[in-house]
Amino acid sequence: MPPLPSGVCWRTVLARAHRARLSSGSRGASGDAGCAQDHPAVVGELRGELDRFGGVSVRLGALDRLDAAAFQRGLQAAIQQWRSEGRIAVWLHIPILQSRFIAPAASLGFCFHHAESDSSTLTLWLGEGPSRLPGYATHQVGVAGAVFDENTRKILVVQDRNKLKNMWKFPGGLSEPGEDIGDTAVREVFEETGIKSEFRSLLSIRQQHTNPGAFGKSDMYIICRLQPCSFTINFCQHECLRCEWMDLNDLVKTENTTPITSRVARLLLYGYREGFDKIDLTMEELPAVYTGLFYKLYHRKLPDKYKTMTLMD
Amino acid sequence: MPPLPSGVCWRTVLARAHRARLSSGSRGASGDAGCAQDHPAVVGELRGELDRFGGVSVRLGALDRLDAAAFQRGLQAAIQQWRSEGRIAVWLHIPILQSRFIAPAASLGFCFHHAESDSSTLTLWLGEGPSRLPGYATHQVGVAGAVFDENTRKILVVQDRNKLKNMWKFPGGLSEPGEDIGDTAVREVFEETGIKSEFRSLLSIRQQHTNPGAFGKSDMYIICRLQPCSFTINFCQHECLRCEWMDLNDLVKTENTTPITSRVARLLLYGYREGFDKIDLTMEELPAVYTGLFYKLYHRKLPDKYKTMTLMD
Repeated sequence: MPPLPSGVCWRTVLARAHRARLSSGSRGASGDAGCAQDHPAVVGELRGELDRFGGVSVRLGALDRLDAAAFQRGLQAAIQQWRSEGRIAVWLHIPILQSRFIAPAASLGFCFHHAESDSSTLTLWLGEGPSRLPGYATHQVGVAGAVFDENTRKILVVQDRNKLKNMWKFPGGLSEPGEDIGDTAVREVFEETGIKSEFRSLLSIRQQHTNPGAFGKSDMYIICRLQPCSFTINFCQHECLRCEWMDLNDLVKTENTTPITSRVARLLLYGYREGFDKIDLTMEELPAVYTGLFYKLYHRKLPDKYKTMTLMD
Repeated sequence: MPPLPSGVCWRTVLARAHRARLSSGSRGASGDAGCAQDHPAVVGELRGELDRFGGVSVRLGALDRLDAAAFQRGLQAAIQQWRSEGRIAVWLHIPILQSRFIAPAASLGFCFHHAESDSSTLTLWLGEGPSRLPGYATHQVGVAGAVFDENTRKILVVQDRNKLKNMWKFPGGLSEPGEDIGDTAVREVFEETGIKSEFRSLLSIRQQHTNPGAFGKSDMYIICRLQPCSFTINFCQHECLRCEWMDLNDLVKTENTTPITSRVARLLLYGYREGFDKIDLTMEELPAVYTGLFYKLYHRKLPDKYKTMTLMD
């Protein structure tokens, strides 16, 4: 949400808000006794910027001289001002060392939107009806690699050390922030098994909600088909109990596996027998419309004539 | 991360830590002057539980009587104790109204892991090397519906009111927390266009990182094929500038569209001409191994003989 060029300084808003509040005499807060301390020069460190969705975004800077009670009075006055101006939301960005301002904001109705590393963001909805503010990230993404060697019909499988004991599954793990699906698969396979591989296709996607392992958020678990580039196993003793190249038919037959591994093993057998084009989602980079950046798009292979056609019927 | 049954009370840890610190006389903190106030009866409200990964999880309860400086001294002593016991991490769960304890924790090295609504979670890594703690959700999930009417060869498209003006695209939006992919597509299509529809398949997945619209997190954008159940458009004037049933060939030909919409239009044309089984990822519910819950799995349609085979060769 980029701020408008016409961003306004919260100092002005606060000063105006204070004048308005003092003159109207309304909403006398219990903390009014200390109000004389709330000089605009102190709260002037706070800056608010309008965004194009009708919200106000406030970044708290260095506020060493401002106590929590004075902050709360200033924020309360500013909220009244923003309401009167028809603003629909307030975003409050707070560095972790300034977190003493969180509880005062919460007592005025703010909630956490998100927090990461050394800062938190709180929001207050001022519009009509329930909040229409966008939520924060809802999913973790895990990726497993089904490393299949067509020449030997063998597939790389592991047994977890910590959970799902005796269950054969594909090596995998959580994506790092900013990591592409295929890169996670290749990295996790190498870290767990010592096998080098290359991304070939995306095979399946699983969506699961309220996942305890995801701190109650949702989980997207993606399995990729990888082509092995090395074959000597050197597995991570910390994560894995066993690791081996297993005949694909044996993985299809075994009961010591998870439903999803068994299903993808059958999918691989189908692809092995009748062509991987039957099971693959191929990957391509395409340009984003505005940013000029590229993203990765996965779908069924599209014949060239459809990709390039410009006129038809 | 479920706590071990052998959860320990932080009160005990703290009391022991205090005795150890006072007797050794080491690490005299600048705040030691007030140490006499940190009676175990005060800090006894804090409880810590061990988890099966070697971490300690502390939930701050009602600590109305504890000031931030006393909390910091108690936490510092407890950290020393946990270190000496070989704990590898501390998780600190703080209700929003107790946020005055965040900055003191941060000054001891804690960072935000995440925060939502009325609480935050901070972590401190005590193990060797860089932190191996799992991250929080990294992706938002957006879903669009390609509502295609096979009888008329028409596809439902919209033009956004706020962005991508004059660009035809499929109606869609962000998933609500806990919402299945197909349900998001059907809901968003109805909210934007008034058209009722049913989920048929998943067509494509796009992954994009450091997305400004996702607060810098990653974005997963999924397009589903939907079957229309109603045909009279009643579009949302707030979100859309235009909405219409467009001949699929026209959408393939137009330049007023995004690369991803054009690509999926071509994919749909391929499916329309040569069979939707060429482009679809079908959905099925499967049971989770331990929880007994079900999840949704998407992959290429698997012939029945592969699904049910038990022995082969």
